Amino acid sequence: MKSDLDARMQTNNLDAIIVIGNATHNPPMYYLTGGGHISGATLIKKRGSDPVLYCNDMERGEAAKSGLKVIPYSTYNNDFLFKEAQGDSLLASAIRYKHMLIDNEVHGRIGIYGTTDFGSAYPIFSRLKDLMPGIELVGEPHDNSLFMYIMETKDEAEVDRIRRMGKITTTVVGRVAGYLTNCQVREDEVLLREDGGPLTIADVKSRINLWLAELGAENPEGTIFAIGRDAGVPHSTGTPTDLLRLGQTIVFDIFPCEAGGGYYYDFTRTWSLGYATPDAQKLYNEVKSVFDKVQENLDLNAPFKNYNRLVCEEFEKYGHQTPLNTPAPVQGYVHSVGHGVGLNIHERPFSGLTATDDNILKPGVVITSEPGLYYPEKGMGVRIEDTLWVRPDGTIEVLAHYPYDFVLKMKNWKNG
Amino acid sequence: MKSDLDARMQTNNLDAIIVIGNATHNPPMYYLTGGGHISGATLIKKRGSDPVLYCNDMERGEAAKSGLKVIPYSTYNNDFLFKEAQGDSLLASAIRYKHMLIDNEVHGRIGIYGTTDFGSAYPIFSRLKDLMPGIELVGEPHDNSLFMYIMETKDEAEVDRIRRMGKITTTVVGRVAGYLTNCQVREDEVLLREDGGPLTIADVKSRINLWLAELGAENPEGTIFAIGRDAGVPHSTGTPTDLLRLGQTIVFDIFPCEAGGGYYYDFTRTWSLGYATPDAQKLYNEVKSVFDKVQENLDLNAPFKNYNRLVCEEFEKYGHQTPLNTPAPVQGYVHSVGHGVGLNIHERPFSGLTATDDNILKPGVVITSEPGLYYPEKGMGVRIEDTLWVRPDGTIEVLAHYPYDFVLKMKNWKNG
Repeated sequence: MKSDLDARMQTNNLDAIIVIGNATHNPPMYYLTGGGHISGATLIKKRGSDPVLYCNDMERGEAAKSGLKVIPYSTYNNDFLFKEAQGDSLLASAIRYKHMLIDNEVHGRIGIYGTTDFGSAYPIFSRLKDLMPGIELVGEPHDNSLFMYIMETKDEAEVDRIRRMGKITTTVVGRVAGYLTNCQVREDEVLLREDGGPLTIADVKSRINLWLAELGAENPEGTIFAIGRDAGVPHSTGTPTDLLRLGQTIVFDIFPCEAGGGYYYDFTRTWSLGYATPDAQKLYNEVKSVFDKVQENLDLNAPFKNYNRLVCEEFEKYGHQTPLNTPAPVQGYVHSVGHGVGLNIHERPFSGLTATDDNILKPGVVITSEPGLYYPEKGMGVRIEDTLWVRPDGTIEVLAHYPYDFVLKMKNWKNG
Repeated sequence: MKSDLDARMQTNNLDAIIVIGNATHNPPMYYLTGGGHISGATLIKKRGSDPVLYCNDMERGEAAKSGLKVIPYSTYNNDFLFKEAQGDSLLASAIRYKHMLIDNEVHGRIGIYGTTDFGSAYPIFSRLKDLMPGIELVGEPHDNSLFMYIMETKDEAEVDRIRRMGKITTTVVGRVAGYLTNCQVREDEVLLREDGGPLTIADVKSRINLWLAELGAENPEGTIFAIGRDAGVPHSTGTPTDLLRLGQTIVFDIFPCEAGGGYYYDFTRTWSLGYATPDAQKLYNEVKSVFDKVQENLDLNAPFKNYNRLVCEEFEKYGHQTPLNTPAPVQGYVHSVGHGVGLNIHERPFSGLTATDDNILKPGVVITSEPGLYYPEKGMGVRIEDTLWVRPDGTIEVLAHYPYDFVLKMKNWKNG
């Protein structure tokens, strides 16, 4: 949580942090500013002191909404900076950073964060280091950075926002189910649009985007809506021209965020329209039983990867390949059981078999549970996913409930 | 254009380029791959050779759609890399980059590009430099980077995509105008929603997002829909709780991009609903006359900033402050006349008074023209903006036409 920032800086032996970039689609900056139309900003925080937010003059008003102390970049006269840098704009930026650090009495080890243009940030910070030999610029692996640690546990206000996104997400999923099951079906079991043409993945995705926008969500990462062989390839997002057909597995993985780049939700259901083939039904039953087993066994403060191991062991009993019995399997269970969700769609805690032991189900974490089985050559895949909150009292809350039906009955077809 | 890449690498004295990050919302990577669900990729291109795209194993299929040569990261055994790096994951990444560069026979000066997590990229590339003392990692100022130069001129296929976004944008603007002018009006001149409540900026913005999504656009940067005092502050996006009222200037600046993070369009109209105050009408007339004067005078191969100077001179005749007669003015004309538009909402050519002389209206550039006048203390502002293409034959094409009406007549109100 945000209140852990100073303590975590101490743990990581950092005297200060610098966060750069826009306030949206940039989790560390969003986390500390609350987002908004602030571009190319710099946040400097010395350990034990309040952060200071530097911004472009024109965006002063937007920046002030953060409630932070705001200083416009123009405080450092651009003409002087350019002159001192002899016209080298990268050096001029580095000199400005130097002044900003000096004015905040920052020295020692400085953590650097933010999603930004690397091609210009790299030379600027390289020059800054040359200008200030006394400082150390400390970068960290993305998945284990200071921000990943402090953002890992959520306060109730954050969970409320994620829960609200869960409500929007499941509302959209319900509308998609309603739309599909009301479609007319052609003789060859292809679904038809209102205009009589065959319904494509692209058609369904455009409706998903429409409904997400209507309900106040953004969809920056897109949606996985994959049928048949694509459903068997976990990272296939679906082929836009594919037709919707009965009796094929459809993996529908939807992960929108709040408009303006805030908190995400992550959710998956697998459907088979009209009827399911016996093979697909068997696969679904196996995934669902393992999904339930995980949910029943989640324990406060347990290492998250224990459940990934549990999923492997259970799937192995059914005869599937998993990362536990096969290096880098391409069919069977090919990913990990879940991950944290917040301002990043993937964040701590992680559950891969090689995740460090501090990825545990601490009170306040919000995680996904998403076991799945994939058989691209058989043209099928199944994944079931909910987003869960480990409550401060240690109980587990599913943040948005939605039925687990696999076969969706078609309204205008004699269902098998 | 893409075909200029090798020549520009030669001009910039680069032996190779590395582009890192996702394929979406990352213009250089999008430009070379065509976008898609490819995360944390690396593209390496030696001058005179075809690019090679490295990606995560699970995203091989998506990456292959780029048509580029694709190599999964797993070609470099992770266990070996970690062992060699003694468990330092940043160093392991640096060692993998080293192998990738060696395998592509890359040495010398290497340009680095991409929007990515700076906190992890900085230490990885710092370590890479230590591992390969023979290479030079060259960063460039964002606005004048190699990609900004090659993306500056568009081919017809790119212009078609921007034009299509223009059509979507102006369709949405038309729907907003239709919606507003059909609203009922309360006695105090506040517009009312269908449910009888007062219409807010937030209500209007949610409709804008809905219509953009319906028509296949994304709105990652948000929309400026600002009324009254906010209209007088160029970078205010509008206060969500502000009510829509008659007789106030509304600056509506809308800049969506293709779904999936592609090409942008940029467009502004200023409206006054029902009637305009004489002061606002005068301001509008002045902006419109200068807007027209720019359009009439645009010449092939002229420096873009000449038109910014023209705008300053014209506005000064009307008695306004401009950057030409006032350092950093806070009212009057406070920005520049326009900028290039493409995969970045702001790109070359630029038109600021200090822009370099090579920011010219070359054949193939797509630019905005957007003069404006701002008086926050008087509670008003006006900006008019179209996106234009400098055609190969030197003529200028407005990429999406839309009327320039200032006062929009209300259907259910006795207009003044």
